[in-house]
Amino acid sequence: MPTDDGLNPSFQEDEFVAQAMEPPSGTRDFLADDVRRRRAAFDAVATVFERYGFDPLETPAFERLEVFAGKLGEDASTLIFKILKRGAHEASGEADLALRYDHTVPLARVVGTYGSRLPAPYKRYTIGPVWRADRAARGRFREFVQCDIDTVGSASGLADAEILWAVHDGLEALGVRDFQFLVNSRQALHGLLEAYGVTPESGASVLGNLDKLDKVPADMVCAGLRSRGLGAEAAEGLVADLTSADTDRVRSKLDATDRGRRGLDEVDGLLKLTAGLPVGRVVFTPRMVRGLDYYTGPIFEVVAAGFPGSIASGGRYDGLIARLGGPDLPACGGSIGVERILAIHSAVEQGRHGLDVALTVLGAEDAVLRLADDIRAKDLRVGVYLGSSGKLARQLKWAHEQGARIAVIYGPDERRRRAVTLRDMQSGEQTAVPLDDVAELLSARLGGSAAPPTFRT
Amino acid sequence: MPTDDGLNPSFQEDEFVAQAMEPPSGTRDFLADDVRRRRAAFDAVATVFERYGFDPLETPAFERLEVFAGKLGEDASTLIFKILKRGAHEASGEADLALRYDHTVPLARVVGTYGSRLPAPYKRYTIGPVWRADRAARGRFREFVQCDIDTVGSASGLADAEILWAVHDGLEALGVRDFQFLVNSRQALHGLLEAYGVTPESGASVLGNLDKLDKVPADMVCAGLRSRGLGAEAAEGLVADLTSADTDRVRSKLDATDRGRRGLDEVDGLLKLTAGLPVGRVVFTPRMVRGLDYYTGPIFEVVAAGFPGSIASGGRYDGLIARLGGPDLPACGGSIGVERILAIHSAVEQGRHGLDVALTVLGAEDAVLRLADDIRAKDLRVGVYLGSSGKLARQLKWAHEQGARIAVIYGPDERRRRAVTLRDMQSGEQTAVPLDDVAELLSARLGGSAAPPTFRT
Repeated sequence: MPTDDGLNPSFQEDEFVAQAMEPPSGTRDFLADDVRRRRAAFDAVATVFERYGFDPLETPAFERLEVFAGKLGEDASTLIFKILKRGAHEASGEADLALRYDHTVPLARVVGTYGSRLPAPYKRYTIGPVWRADRAARGRFREFVQCDIDTVGSASGLADAEILWAVHDGLEALGVRDFQFLVNSRQALHGLLEAYGVTPESGASVLGNLDKLDKVPADMVCAGLRSRGLGAEAAEGLVADLTSADTDRVRSKLDATDRGRRGLDEVDGLLKLTAGLPVGRVVFTPRMVRGLDYYTGPIFEVVAAGFPGSIASGGRYDGLIARLGGPDLPACGGSIGVERILAIHSAVEQGRHGLDVALTVLGAEDAVLRLADDIRAKDLRVGVYLGSSGKLARQLKWAHEQGARIAVIYGPDERRRRAVTLRDMQSGEQTAVPLDDVAELLSARLGGSAAPPTFRT
Repeated sequence: MPTDDGLNPSFQEDEFVAQAMEPPSGTRDFLADDVRRRRAAFDAVATVFERYGFDPLETPAFERLEVFAGKLGEDASTLIFKILKRGAHEASGEADLALRYDHTVPLARVVGTYGSRLPAPYKRYTIGPVWRADRAARGRFREFVQCDIDTVGSASGLADAEILWAVHDGLEALGVRDFQFLVNSRQALHGLLEAYGVTPESGASVLGNLDKLDKVPADMVCAGLRSRGLGAEAAEGLVADLTSADTDRVRSKLDATDRGRRGLDEVDGLLKLTAGLPVGRVVFTPRMVRGLDYYTGPIFEVVAAGFPGSIASGGRYDGLIARLGGPDLPACGGSIGVERILAIHSAVEQGRHGLDVALTVLGAEDAVLRLADDIRAKDLRVGVYLGSSGKLARQLKWAHEQGARIAVIYGPDERRRRAVTLRDMQSGEQTAVPLDDVAELLSARLGGSAAPPTFRT
């Protein structure tokens, strides 16, 4: 039963029940302000992607288990949440479904499922949760939103460039200001290895080693390369080429092989096609490898002042859709680390989302609800006191807790005069206004604010 | 590899792969138009709920299995999707998590988790998917969106009335026009049974039988009541009272017991507090029982012309939050059957979502991307040709397939004159305009349209 002011005593006992009632490890409940902030961020990015002609796609939370089979690699496979068979089959302890691990496996399936019914090329974006049974840690979640754009079915360098443009505008829409695209090419990296005589077989392992250049001292990377069979000269040459501030050093090496030249062409093509972005936003970064081995062409990562690691990344991955079970189509894409950005931006002050108008209730409940409806019709956020106290002071306390800007008082005195009293919750000033003018006056004074909030940083 | 026009031949093979690539049984992929339509509908309802001062809440897709234990009843328990333990525990075949079955169990947990940190009363809405391993059937899905509003912590009749108002406005926002709230009270129903001498023990079973009155002939319901131990007079009296068009008959019966009078007061209170809704929208309907046994006070269902069954429902359920593991707080709520409404409305014509402007590519790719960016800055939806054909006719065919209103041609001739040719894709009319004026001219001609679409019915 509620107490006098509608606040039940058991609301106070949260210390006692809290631990038993946490959401599952690695997941989060999003209360009002968080939902609004996240929704506004996702909407801002979606609006950008729409403007680029990308279509939204939403797939089920889970896929048949065989859709994942053999497609994620061993590490990822241990991280998928598997769903037990239902009914009589439950006792078997077997799973037949799994929560989606990313948006790329479902994309490959969708391209296979709908084929020619999709536009060609198929440009789609997906902003939605994925689930990974990673060890829960600070800032790492088991349920988190991934924000992907991909173009399936175009081999054109324009498609790669368009991804960068769209990611660029998406980051700006999220309020990220001081950021930079590091671009490279998988072809260039392989061409460079060729120039140093690295065998194709050890290529992946050597690239994996070079990927550590931004975290590990150069001489340790050198040692790692030597343990992979490279000579001292090659190991040191590679590291020096990739870490040199002067990219001409790498360029001349790349010019020495066919593959290197192709890679250089990819990089220069991308630089040319993104020259319309602000100066310095896109930079050839020979040491940028991208850990994942499925990339086949241009690749990028975005770094930004104030953000650890990268806040967006992507590239061309021409064989992957087929490897994931879809048709053999060229593809490229990018992903914005929205959770990472939201985590940093969460420190920033948010807009207010309290009530615009709080209506007290001192009898005449039906008239109060009608009045509330009139005021809502002006696009204002309106609350009515739902507690059981008949005392105005209590009700004004409630209005204050709701962040209301104006409280409306419609007591017996007011009713006799067909008027209401408006109380400015900031100043405490009270004004009597005719009942019929209340909605209009409040609208003029407060403006409509119930519209979906825009993303503020 | 893409063919000449960027359309890969394997896109044509969908008949072959389709069956192997369907989404899991009972789930759906939502392609562009569906996502847009659904999102617009959910946004429309959310905007209404916000205006009433309800706060959004999002909880994880899954809860710890024990959160559900003993709370859903036997039927529901067989319908939850259970998630297998991970890692070394996977082999046990045991589950420790389950996908949420509704939004009410998570609400009870959240009220327990956050206690006094929530506003009092806690008014929240949730619009999001739930999962039920129901037998998949036409129009019944295993993943579907539920749209709930609830007020936890208020015993006031104003809270019940406010739910009806908000659901009313939500339905209007979804374009439902000709609908009616059938209202009743659990207290009234129990009072009526008391007046007919039905024992409290057989009350639930008798109500379950009476719940069939709108589907089953009255004499079969009578027979059912008699088999539950009711005398002929009581059975026939009950059925006659509940099916009479004249509610005064029931009213006088209810006046005979304390509980009946309390129920009648609830109904009349609700009628009074919703008198501000359009005339005839809210109707006392004695035979409306609501199948679920957790309701304790006023209950409602919404029926609408053209929709089978009900499209919204709800009521007061004072003991439920505690039964679900939360604190013992009074609560009431409602749910809009958005999936049901979307299914019927899907027949209705949708707004267009093609490109506003399609840019052809005949060399000068970098200039084309800059131009695209200028046009996007006017809030227009802009696509750039990403195929490999250099033939204008092919590219215009693509522009047509994308639903583009204007195609932009920037060939060698145009470049010499620092102009572009705008082609009206409807009329075929072509106009040359100076390069620097293109964005402005297109904006004036097409207006901004990349803003999120509003819900159209």
